[in-house]
Amino acid sequence: MSGLKVLALCGSLRAKSTNKALVEYAIEHAPEGMQIELADLSELPFYNADLPAKPAAVERLLAQFAKADALLLACPEYNYSIAPALKNALDWVSREPNNELMAGKVAAIMGSGGGMGTSRAQYHLRQVCVFLDLHLVNKPEVFCNAFANTFDSDGKLTDERIQSLIVQQLAALQELALRFKN
Amino acid sequence: MSGLKVLALCGSLRAKSTNKALVEYAIEHAPEGMQIELADLSELPFYNADLPAKPAAVERLLAQFAKADALLLACPEYNYSIAPALKNALDWVSREPNNELMAGKVAAIMGSGGGMGTSRAQYHLRQVCVFLDLHLVNKPEVFCNAFANTFDSDGKLTDERIQSLIVQQLAALQELALRFKN
Amino acid sequence: MSGLKVLALCGSLRAKSTNKALVEYAIEHAPEGMQIELADLSELPFYNADLPAKPAAVERLLAQFAKADALLLACPEYNYSIAPALKNALDWVSREPNNELMAGKVAAIMGSGGGMGTSRAQYHLRQVCVFLDLHLVNKPEVFCNAFANTFDSDGKLTDERIQSLIVQQLAALQELALRFKN
Amino acid sequence: MSGLKVLALCGSLRAKSTNKALVEYAIEHAPEGMQIELADLSELPFYNADLPAKPAAVERLLAQFAKADALLLACPEYNYSIAPALKNALDWVSREPNNELMAGKVAAIMGSGGGMGTSRAQYHLRQVCVFLDLHLVNKPEVFCNAFANTFDSDGKLTDERIQSLIVQQLAALQELALRFKN
Repeated sequence: MSGLKVLALCGSLRAKSTNKALVEYAIEHAPEGMQIELADLSELPFYNADLPAKPAAVERLLAQFAKADALLLACPEYNYSIAPALKNALDWVSREPNNELMAGKVAAIMGSGGGMGTSRAQYHLRQVCVFLDLHLVNKPEVFCNAFANTFDSDGKLTDERIQSLIVQQLAALQELALRFKN
Repeated sequence: MSGLKVLALCGSLRAKSTNKALVEYAIEHAPEGMQIELADLSELPFYNADLPAKPAAVERLLAQFAKADALLLACPEYNYSIAPALKNALDWVSREPNNELMAGKVAAIMGSGGGMGTSRAQYHLRQVCVFLDLHLVNKPEVFCNAFANTFDSDGKLTDERIQSLIVQQLAALQELALRFKN
Repeated sequence: MSGLKVLALCGSLRAKSTNKALVEYAIEHAPEGMQIELADLSELPFYNADLPAKPAAVERLLAQFAKADALLLACPEYNYSIAPALKNALDWVSREPNNELMAGKVAAIMGSGGGMGTSRAQYHLRQVCVFLDLHLVNKPEVFCNAFANTFDSDGKLTDERIQSLIVQQLAALQELALRFKN
Repeated sequence: MSGLKVLALCGSLRAKSTNKALVEYAIEHAPEGMQIELADLSELPFYNADLPAKPAAVERLLAQFAKADALLLACPEYNYSIAPALKNALDWVSREPNNELMAGKVAAIMGSGGGMGTSRAQYHLRQVCVFLDLHLVNKPEVFCNAFANTFDSDGKLTDERIQSLIVQQLAALQELALRFKN
């Protein structure tokens, strides 16, 4: 498959987010034929049906979704569930007619966090993706424990097990995208 | 029990939110000895550990939590999970030392939405409340179907079944608060 | 696609189960090229790693899974989660080496029950299917309310909306199976 | 509080179950004033509304529930959800009129299993307990990793961190029971 365009969303807005570090590793190690771009969620307002027009940051995000064949969702865990910045981005995009910017696309989920590696948040996100009609990679799941010696002092992912899982997951995403092509 | 102070949070920011209408009904029909106040979540930014200081809207919310004995969570359902504005408010407050503004308090959940009455979002919220160490009312659950003739043209709750459930739930919250007093 | 073999599992053991009635409707209205067979779960013991050999009922079920291309899971809701008879059948089959009788296959979920149409149980079942590496139909979901005039006095499904959803779901299952063929 | 009677249920039927080992540790280290008894789930049939009478094993379990003030649920994780033997026991007991043998009682959950310590199953079980109207201990949660050097060659729990969590959880259960007394 040539030219699979993947849009990555990261639920943490921190500059040194370990979840962003997972995405950066994915960008640098994407398999041949896959390009990963990281969306900027920092300017998105909370979804509110009363807003008279779509804010510019929303329009930019919609344009990125329109070009994307697949999604990579970096999912922090806050209080046993999804980070609001990630959920809010998906909520905005879901409001397009017939959910046309997501329905039927493929996606993969990864996350970095406490002792359970964000698994609790990831299962909530999987339920969200049922409604969004996204087809998710089942395995491998990427649960990264941010407390271990997983990142170096510059915030780069150095744990070889997680690095390998990310590479495997991207390959699985590529294969899944191929199945849903056309 | 005299003077149970309940802080209500509504996950929808719309002016004519049906979830806000549930809270308004609760405020007007609170049992004797219970005062319900609705928090304003519209000015809260997304939680971001990089922010140098707590925004003023966060400080105001923290002050309201400090005075509250109990919580009333009006939980819309967006894409099968929690509305980001509600989750974000809880995330901000959870960052206080030892989660001291929530731990051990009691809470009730209600919601208005599509065919399942926000139940999918409410079960996610219940998982969040495990970590927040909130003690929740089990029954009655309040699942309000916003598609039926549930609200009048001014947005007021008119469905008698839901009205009755809210009254019962507030009584259950009051009883639960009494058990956790001291 | 010619000859898609679907194995149906029903979580209720009752003779007049409404969940079984959904499967029976599916069997009678399967699209061309799909054969649906209903497994018999009534003789399966609870999974127990101490058992010295696989019981005969388990061997029969494994043989049915080996021939199946896809699964149809009729999911009652007991106490807000999955019926043990259904979960136990999946647990038994998952114990085969590399989960080879399920991994990578496709499946659809339907259910009949109380006010939420077994949705609470179905989302738990979806989480189970992540580990089982089953690829699920996202839409349409089939949530059948057994309290309405949904079944006739012989226990046959008569609700036209649910009938239509089942037909649509089987078509979606057939399409999904085609994507995962090879 | 004198004489808190706790009934323990273990979802694994194996003789050397690590989940049973958690219960055995709890029995030996119950705080003063708490007696823990382990139910025998091995003879329970699958719940089936067609059965003409309650099987003897069900009657014995109901009698144990009738005497119990509180529950201790040892929750293995099979395929990311609850073990059928545990769920089935709760389903049987829930069929008593008005759920009178569980409604309003208190309970604690612990589990031993794979990398996530059965957390995925425990959150499903917490949702079940909403319908059962059980009041659960929030903290500490007991997630035991059965792969580490957690048990000795006789199957006894030897991990000091988990031992301490169990002792803390039993104290929390005792305190919670006191709040719900009368």
